[in-house]
Amino acid sequence: MYALYIANKNYSSWSLRPWVLLKTLGIEFDERFVPFLQGSSYEEFRKFSPTGLVPCLVDGDLTVWDSLAITEYVAEDHSSVWPADRAARAWARSATAEMHSGFSALRNICGMNVGVRVRMHEISAALQANLDRLDELWGEGLSRFGGPFLAGETFTAVDAFFCPVAFRIQTYGLELGEKSMAYSQRLLTVPAMKEWYQAGLAETIRDEPHDAEIALAGTLMEDLRAV
Amino acid sequence: MYALYIANKNYSSWSLRPWVLLKTLGIEFDERFVPFLQGSSYEEFRKFSPTGLVPCLVDGDLTVWDSLAITEYVAEDHSSVWPADRAARAWARSATAEMHSGFSALRNICGMNVGVRVRMHEISAALQANLDRLDELWGEGLSRFGGPFLAGETFTAVDAFFCPVAFRIQTYGLELGEKSMAYSQRLLTVPAMKEWYQAGLAETIRDEPHDAEIALAGTLMEDLRAV
Repeated sequence: MYALYIANKNYSSWSLRPWVLLKTLGIEFDERFVPFLQGSSYEEFRKFSPTGLVPCLVDGDLTVWDSLAITEYVAEDHSSVWPADRAARAWARSATAEMHSGFSALRNICGMNVGVRVRMHEISAALQANLDRLDELWGEGLSRFGGPFLAGETFTAVDAFFCPVAFRIQTYGLELGEKSMAYSQRLLTVPAMKEWYQAGLAETIRDEPHDAEIALAGTLMEDLRAV
Repeated sequence: MYALYIANKNYSSWSLRPWVLLKTLGIEFDERFVPFLQGSSYEEFRKFSPTGLVPCLVDGDLTVWDSLAITEYVAEDHSSVWPADRAARAWARSATAEMHSGFSALRNICGMNVGVRVRMHEISAALQANLDRLDELWGEGLSRFGGPFLAGETFTAVDAFFCPVAFRIQTYGLELGEKSMAYSQRLLTVPAMKEWYQAGLAETIRDEPHDAEIALAGTLMEDLRAV
């Protein structure tokens, strides 16, 4: 069975991607939780992950680091990871790779923190450009492949890669067009997303460097996390 | 036949990846050159690429944007893109994805500029951390899979993704361990890399924003480009 190393469900956007993918597709794995702990996580993570980053998948004597490499590795044995249709698959891989290397303003300014609600100080031009592109990209996928998911009827890897964005939209009150907002809400109601969210709220381990990002982005309005 | 949109060979590190991969594997494509032009490239690139970025591959009515998505798209029809061995393939995909989303100090500080030689002002801690990780990663691949390429005997996608790094090492005089320096030199002697390099030197179209990065990184010692 796969072993998937992940960090705090409240903070770890990269961990969420393969986790929600495997859960939603019904692919079994052994979950290994190693929390962020006040900046000392790198040395802990290095014990299993060559980059000192999560997620990291271990399958027997193979270690696969990085969320996208994990996705392609799992796809070799599970055809449900990507859309069956060739055009939809090409589009899904492009959108997934774009998320993997891009949207840096969104990722840097609006760090994933599922259990809080924040009123943004401002939407910078770089962040707005990311939101505009996101709206365009989601709109294209939903209309071209018919929805309700980005590349068609079923939840695939491209949806998993945008799951952290759905939490960011909720946390920071970000606004996209109507169709994109509906899609973002849809992601939040996927059973594995609800499970992740509840587990994130229930976590009591905090990581100060992650929580410090809140004040840079905006004003903390609500903290729903367990104490 | 595939059509591959690329920008200036002197500057475009992302274009180099699929170009050198397809060339080296003998996969035919129609090369479409659209240069960076004083910051006005976005609107030009948007005519064929949804992100306004290169590279972008067009195959009939399908458009595949992003270097890694192109790689996986082509891999569906060409098994030589990734190593045949399962363990080598998992490793190669991980290292490729790590390059795709990481090594940001190296990418930001040492912009690819194949035709110049620069003496660095300093090696920042973030850049040194990238170089240390690069040295470790390359060393692991070369010793585990036996070389001369990163994942074994043949040039695959993981080598293509590090080809821009070989040019950066040459341009900025970066230093890695002996084994890594030999590998970097080896990449420079791959026929497609020599072809790209000569074409980069011969280009006379300049992009000021790219050339302005030189002075931020260090002191220009030599400019080998055609005038």
